[in-house]
Amino acid sequence: MANGTEHTVKAFDDDIVELRGLISEMGGRAEAAIADAMQALVRHDLAAAETVVEEDKRIDELEGQIERLAVRIIALRAPMADDLREVVAALKIASVIERIGDYAKNIAKRTAQIGGPHKIDALAMLPAMAAIAAEMVHDVLDAFAARDWQLALRVSERDRAVDDFYNSIFRTLVTFMMENPATIGQAAHLLFVAKNLERIGDHATNVAEMVYFAAKGTYMAERDRGEDAIGTEA
Amino acid sequence: MANGTEHTVKAFDDDIVELRGLISEMGGRAEAAIADAMQALVRHDLAAAETVVEEDKRIDELEGQIERLAVRIIALRAPMADDLREVVAALKIASVIERIGDYAKNIAKRTAQIGGPHKIDALAMLPAMAAIAAEMVHDVLDAFAARDWQLALRVSERDRAVDDFYNSIFRTLVTFMMENPATIGQAAHLLFVAKNLERIGDHATNVAEMVYFAAKGTYMAERDRGEDAIGTEA
Repeated sequence: MANGTEHTVKAFDDDIVELRGLISEMGGRAEAAIADAMQALVRHDLAAAETVVEEDKRIDELEGQIERLAVRIIALRAPMADDLREVVAALKIASVIERIGDYAKNIAKRTAQIGGPHKIDALAMLPAMAAIAAEMVHDVLDAFAARDWQLALRVSERDRAVDDFYNSIFRTLVTFMMENPATIGQAAHLLFVAKNLERIGDHATNVAEMVYFAAKGTYMAERDRGEDAIGTEA
Repeated sequence: MANGTEHTVKAFDDDIVELRGLISEMGGRAEAAIADAMQALVRHDLAAAETVVEEDKRIDELEGQIERLAVRIIALRAPMADDLREVVAALKIASVIERIGDYAKNIAKRTAQIGGPHKIDALAMLPAMAAIAAEMVHDVLDAFAARDWQLALRVSERDRAVDDFYNSIFRTLVTFMMENPATIGQAAHLLFVAKNLERIGDHATNVAEMVYFAAKGTYMAERDRGEDAIGTEA
């Protein structure tokens, strides 16, 4: 009997290790997609942009794999309490990473729309904003793996910097558009790029909240974290 | 023994009825939020916009309730195969509806930013676009409740109309901005409103794909459904 239980526990642990490995791979790919999409955009590299779009399929496939594995774990191992919550959390995190991958893909797709060399002021701010967003994704998955609520808290705090970038880029772009009406089409796409990065920060923050809650059993403080910023007018 | 099984089946069915009821309530609220947000925006009604923002909290709470109920069903009833898939589908659909509610909230929040009476051409197209998106949300939840793959297919087909609206509004807004640089700040917010509606259509389509797959066991045809549209330049 003790042996049987041990066997079951071992099988469950193996499954969880596999599940975490898949989430870690998925997160690594999403993080890389953000950086690659931004580089493609800044360098106007259409081939690199196409690669990001193609590679997003692998991120989607990983979500499918995680879902199937989670359902199998639940069906075969019938995990209880904390174990079940971990499996459900993995499902939710996979769905958030899938969305982050979509945002990166969307940025890549705009490379062709934005077109050739451009001197739009706000463009210079985007890579720095993308770097913070990608780092948040990286760190929040580390926090999840290590159940590190302090790291999760630090990730959520960085969302303020991403929102500040967003508001600043929004204002810069609106001003730029007013002064250069001919570039409005290009600049409009950059508005969406900034928005996508802002949403990536929100999603990383949402995962941070989950990690925090799982570890501490209480919610992060009141202020609106992971909230869609509106952008303020110039 | 037969009695025990019957009892379990009955308890599971009761749980599923409750789960579906919560999803239906959540969907109805999200659908209403889209219409209410659009009306608040068009009429520049700040109080109505505030109500949409407030009511979104209830949608978020419902997602939490659905998650807790789903986890309880899995833990207590240990559903197998199709039943387990239904519970997992409910979890996923709740997360999609939560996002749809967020898009409606985001539209409402822009009411204040867009400001007083405005005569931006594209504004006239937005309510019609919002009506289609809200109807897609309505119908896809009916399709889920009735496991009606044909209705799900019709929902996904309507996504093309939403994408066409989006591309048309994008072009109209960019042109308008070029001709009226003073309105660029307002018009930029309307770009995001159109984008939010386009995303609502995508999410309804994603649910339609889930319903279709659950009923037919095969995926909907090849063309990219539920895909983020980029918008083309004027």
